Amino acid sequence: MDTGEYTTAALADLFGVARSGAHRAVERERALKATTASTRHHEAGATETYYGHKMTDANLDFANLKALFINTTLTRSPGHSHTQLLVDVSASIMAKQGVAVDQFRAVDHPIATGIYPDMREHGWADDAWPDLFKRVRAADILVIAGPIWLGDNSSETKKIIERLYAHSSELNDKGQWLYYGKVGGCLITGNEDGIKHCASNVLYSLQHIGYSVAPQSDAGWIGEAGPGPSYGDVLEDGTRVGVDNEFTNRNTTFMTWNLLHLAKMLNSAGGFPAHGNQRSEWDAGQRFDFQNPEYRS
Amino acid sequence: MDTGEYTTAALADLFGVARSGAHRAVERERALKATTASTRHHEAGATETYYGHKMTDANLDFANLKALFINTTLTRSPGHSHTQLLVDVSASIMAKQGVAVDQFRAVDHPIATGIYPDMREHGWADDAWPDLFKRVRAADILVIAGPIWLGDNSSETKKIIERLYAHSSELNDKGQWLYYGKVGGCLITGNEDGIKHCASNVLYSLQHIGYSVAPQSDAGWIGEAGPGPSYGDVLEDGTRVGVDNEFTNRNTTFMTWNLLHLAKMLNSAGGFPAHGNQRSEWDAGQRFDFQNPEYRS
Amino acid sequence: MDTGEYTTAALADLFGVARSGAHRAVERERALKATTASTRHHEAGATETYYGHKMTDANLDFANLKALFINTTLTRSPGHSHTQLLVDVSASIMAKQGVAVDQFRAVDHPIATGIYPDMREHGWADDAWPDLFKRVRAADILVIAGPIWLGDNSSETKKIIERLYAHSSELNDKGQWLYYGKVGGCLITGNEDGIKHCASNVLYSLQHIGYSVAPQSDAGWIGEAGPGPSYGDVLEDGTRVGVDNEFTNRNTTFMTWNLLHLAKMLNSAGGFPAHGNQRSEWDAGQRFDFQNPEYRS
Amino acid sequence: MDTGEYTTAALADLFGVARSGAHRAVERERALKATTASTRHHEAGATETYYGHKMTDANLDFANLKALFINTTLTRSPGHSHTQLLVDVSASIMAKQGVAVDQFRAVDHPIATGIYPDMREHGWADDAWPDLFKRVRAADILVIAGPIWLGDNSSETKKIIERLYAHSSELNDKGQWLYYGKVGGCLITGNEDGIKHCASNVLYSLQHIGYSVAPQSDAGWIGEAGPGPSYGDVLEDGTRVGVDNEFTNRNTTFMTWNLLHLAKMLNSAGGFPAHGNQRSEWDAGQRFDFQNPEYRS
Repeated sequence: MDTGEYTTAALADLFGVARSGAHRAVERERALKATTASTRHHEAGATETYYGHKMTDANLDFANLKALFINTTLTRSPGHSHTQLLVDVSASIMAKQGVAVDQFRAVDHPIATGIYPDMREHGWADDAWPDLFKRVRAADILVIAGPIWLGDNSSETKKIIERLYAHSSELNDKGQWLYYGKVGGCLITGNEDGIKHCASNVLYSLQHIGYSVAPQSDAGWIGEAGPGPSYGDVLEDGTRVGVDNEFTNRNTTFMTWNLLHLAKMLNSAGGFPAHGNQRSEWDAGQRFDFQNPEYRS
Repeated sequence: MDTGEYTTAALADLFGVARSGAHRAVERERALKATTASTRHHEAGATETYYGHKMTDANLDFANLKALFINTTLTRSPGHSHTQLLVDVSASIMAKQGVAVDQFRAVDHPIATGIYPDMREHGWADDAWPDLFKRVRAADILVIAGPIWLGDNSSETKKIIERLYAHSSELNDKGQWLYYGKVGGCLITGNEDGIKHCASNVLYSLQHIGYSVAPQSDAGWIGEAGPGPSYGDVLEDGTRVGVDNEFTNRNTTFMTWNLLHLAKMLNSAGGFPAHGNQRSEWDAGQRFDFQNPEYRS
Repeated sequence: MDTGEYTTAALADLFGVARSGAHRAVERERALKATTASTRHHEAGATETYYGHKMTDANLDFANLKALFINTTLTRSPGHSHTQLLVDVSASIMAKQGVAVDQFRAVDHPIATGIYPDMREHGWADDAWPDLFKRVRAADILVIAGPIWLGDNSSETKKIIERLYAHSSELNDKGQWLYYGKVGGCLITGNEDGIKHCASNVLYSLQHIGYSVAPQSDAGWIGEAGPGPSYGDVLEDGTRVGVDNEFTNRNTTFMTWNLLHLAKMLNSAGGFPAHGNQRSEWDAGQRFDFQNPEYRS
Repeated sequence: MDTGEYTTAALADLFGVARSGAHRAVERERALKATTASTRHHEAGATETYYGHKMTDANLDFANLKALFINTTLTRSPGHSHTQLLVDVSASIMAKQGVAVDQFRAVDHPIATGIYPDMREHGWADDAWPDLFKRVRAADILVIAGPIWLGDNSSETKKIIERLYAHSSELNDKGQWLYYGKVGGCLITGNEDGIKHCASNVLYSLQHIGYSVAPQSDAGWIGEAGPGPSYGDVLEDGTRVGVDNEFTNRNTTFMTWNLLHLAKMLNSAGGFPAHGNQRSEWDAGQRFDFQNPEYRS
C-alpha cells in the first residue's frame, strides 16, 4: 500500500487538467485553452525573448521533465498532512505543463536509518530507500516538502537528506557527482516559525551534493507567533487558514516556475556543463587552472 | 583609498595570467599555452559535448562575464585577511578565463547600517553602499567571502546581506526581482568550525533575493576543533596552514567553474527565463496556472 | 547624546512603578500595593516553597540585581524600534521588582567592528565598546533584543556578539571565563519568520562564552508568512499588532522571571560554582577527573 | 537486547572508579584517594567559597544526581559509535562523583516517529519512547550526544527532540512545564564541520522546553575541513584521532562539571523557582506584573 502518493493523473483529476501519458499533449492544449486567464500570458509572451530565442509554445513545453516531491511530514497516511496541500499547489502547476510528477510520503515507507545506499547490507532487515532512490534518480526536479517542529526540519527531512548524501561517492558519466544537472526546491509549512531556517538547511544540503538551486526556491506558510491552526485548516467561519496568503501563493508559484525553467535549461544542455567540476578528472590530477595561494608571495 | 582590492590586472600579475582589457584574448591564449598541465584538458575536452554542442574554445570563453567578490572580513586594509587568500584562488581561476573580476573589502568602506538602498536619505551622513551597489549590479557572479566568528557569519557579512536585501522592491526590465539572472557563491574561512552553517545562510539569502545557485557553491577552510592557526598562516616548519588541503582546493575550484558555467548559461539566455516569476505580472493579476488548494475538495 | 536609552527611573515613569536609587524599596512596596492584581499572587504565594525555603518577600526581592538590555535594531534613535516595545515589557517587569535596569541601542553608538576589546588599539579612531562593556560587566542579566532580517539576526546583533566574544581571554577572580555567573536572554521581533533561528544563535553564543541560560529564555513576535505590519504597529481599526498575542506576552513574562530567578540564584551563590571549570586551573595542569578515552581499552 | 548502554557500574569498571549503589560512598572515597592528581584540587579547594559556603566534600557530593546520555548516532549496536567515546569521557567524570549515569543509543530502540507521547495510540504498532521517557523524567541532567551529517544534527537527534517536545502540554506539580529544574547539555562529533551549528539547535531546543543551560554546555570534536578520520580512530602510527585535543578535552570536562553544578543548585532548591513561570497560573489569569506595551502612550 502506498497511500498519500498522487500520480500525475490523479493530480490532473484534482485540478481538472491534463492526464499523464499519451493524452497529455492534447489534453494540455485543451486545458490551456480552457483557462483563459492563464493563457493570456502565453499568447502575450509569444514575442518575448526566451532562452535567447523568440518565446514560443515549444519553449514553455516542459513535458519531457520529471519532478519528484518527497513529503517529509511525521504523519503517516492516511493521516492528514498540511504540507501536502502546498505540494498539491506546486505539483498541479507542473502537471498542467505536462511534467511527469511523482511523489511519496517518506514516513509511509520503511526507510532505514543510516548513511549507506542500502542499509540491508548493514544489518537492517528492511530498507525502502534503494527503490525510492530510483525515483530520485529519475527526476530532474526534487522538491523536499516538510513540516517545522520546534523551528527546525523534521526527523524525516533529515533522514531523507542523510540517504541522499549516502550516494556521495557515485558519479555520473561525466565524472561529476550524481546530482549534477538536477534542480532542487523546498516547501515548508508550520504553525508559527521557521520556514527560512528549514529551507536554508534543505537548499544548502541539496546544492552541496550537486543540485542547482533556482531563484526563490523556498516557499511555505506559517502563522503568527505561538500555537495556532495549520495551513489549510478550516476555521469556524468556514475559511481555510493560509490558503489565501498572497505571499505563500506567489512564492510557491514562482518557485515552481523557476524550478521548471532551470531544469529545462540544464536538461537541454545535457546536464550541468562538465569542465572544472569532475571528481574523476580532479582525482586523476587535473587542476583546472587552480593555483595554490602559497605561490602568491 | 581603497586598499585590499585587486583589479583583474593585478590578479593577472599575481598569478601570471592575462590582463583585462584589450590584450585579454591574446594574453589569455598565451597564458593557456604556457600552462601545459591545465591546457591538456582544454585540448582533450575539445570534442566533449558542452551546452548541447561540441565543446570548443568558444564555449569555454567566459570573457564577457563579470564577477564581484565581497570580502566581509572584520579586518580593515592593510590588515591581513585570511579569507582573501581563498578569494585569490577563486578569482585567479576566473581571471585566467578572461572574466572581469572586481572585488572589495566591505569593512574598508563606510557602509551605513540599515535596510534602505541609500541610508543618506535616512539620516546617515555617509553611505558607501550606493556606489558599491553599482558594482553588484554590474556583476553576473557575486561571491560573498567571509570569516567565521563564534560559528556564524561576521557582522560585515550580515550588513552586506541586509543592504542587498534593501533593494527588494526593485525589478529588472522583465518584471523579475533585480537579482534574477545572476549567480551567487560563498567562500568561508575560520579556525575551527562553521563553513556549512555560514555558507548555508549566505547561499540561502542569495537565492531568496533572486540569485541562482550552482552545484557545490560553498567552499572554505577550517582547522580541527579548538583555537588554532588560520588559513594560510606560516608555521614554524615553513609550511602554510590549509593551502594544501585537498578538499578546500577541490571545492574552491569546482565552485568557481560552476559559477562560471551557470552564469554563462543564464547570460546566454538573456537572463533567467521570464514566465511565472514576474512580480509585475503577478501584481497585475496573472496567476500562471496557480490554483488555490481550497478548490480541491 | 544617548537617545533611545531608558533609565530605570524613566521606565518606572512609563509604567508607573518605583524609581531606582534610595527610594526604590519604599516605592516598590507602594507600587506593589497599588497593583492589586499583581500583588494577589505575592500574597497567595507567601506559603509556597521557594528556593527550598518558605516563599517570603525577601525571596522575591531582586533589588540587588542589575540587568542590561541591548537593542540591536538597525534603526538609530530617535527612529522607531519595534523591538523596543518588547524590551519595555520585559524591562518594566524587572523594574517593578526593583532591578536596576540599564539599556542601550547599539546602532546609536560608534561601536567599532572587530574582535579586540578596544579597537582604538587596532587602528580605529573611535570605539564606544570599551565604555559600553563596563555596563555589560556590571549586569547580572544580559538580554540581547533584536530584529529579524531575511530570517537571521541583524548585523548589529552580530557585532555585539563579536565584541562580547573579544573578551574571551579574560577570566574572573575564580579563574573562570568572565561571563560565568551571569544570565543571558533574548527578545526577537520581525514581520514574519525567524524568532527561533535568531534566538538559537544568540543564546548559543551567550552560553558558549559563559552565560547561563534559564528555561524558555527566548521570546518574541512575528506575524504570518509574508511582509506585513510589525510588532506594535497601529492598524486602521486602532488595534495594535501583536501586543495582545497571548504566546508573546506569556513567553516574555516567563523569560523575564526565569532570568531573575537564575540570576538571583547565581548571585546568592557568589557566582557560578568554581570547580572543574576554571581555565586557570586547567592550564596549570589540573584535570578534574577527566580521563582520556584512549585509556579505555 | 540493549547493547551499547552502560550502567554506572560498567562505567566504573571501565574507568576504575566507584560502583553505583550501596558501596558508592565508600568506594568513591577510595577512588578519590587513589587518584592523587585529581584529589589535589579537592583538598586545595577545601577552603574555597562554594555555593556561598565554605567548600567541603559535601558540596562536591553529587551522589544524589541522575544523568542520562542519549547517543543519537545513526549506527546501531554493536556497531562503533565515535560519539560514544566522548560520552564515556563525560559520563565517567560524573560516575566518579557518584552520579547515577544512565544512557541509551536511540537507534537501537524502535522509537516511533511523531509528535505524541505514545505513538501506539496513533497507529504505530511499536513505540519504545514511553519507556525511554521514564528515564528522561528520572534524570536531573540530559545530554544529547550526536554525530554531524552534512553539517547538521542527525535524524535520530531530531527524532529525540520531537519526542521530548511532544510532552509540551504536561506540567510539573508547580504548574511549570515538565522539564523545569532539569539541566541540558550537548556533545557532538563529526569529521569536519558543524559542532556549533548542531549544539546550537540541541541547546536551543532544550531550553525552549524548559531545561536550564549551564555555561559552555557544548563540547565536541571535528577535524580539519574535508573528509577524514573520526574521533578516536586509530591511525597507522598508532595514535588516536582527536583524543588528545586540548580544546575538546577541556570543553568536555568543563561542560560536565557545569552540568553538575547547575543541576545540584536546582536540585537543592527543589526545582526551578516557581513564580512568574507557571503555565497553570497564567492560564488562570495571573499576569506576574506583565503590562501590555499598548498602555505605554
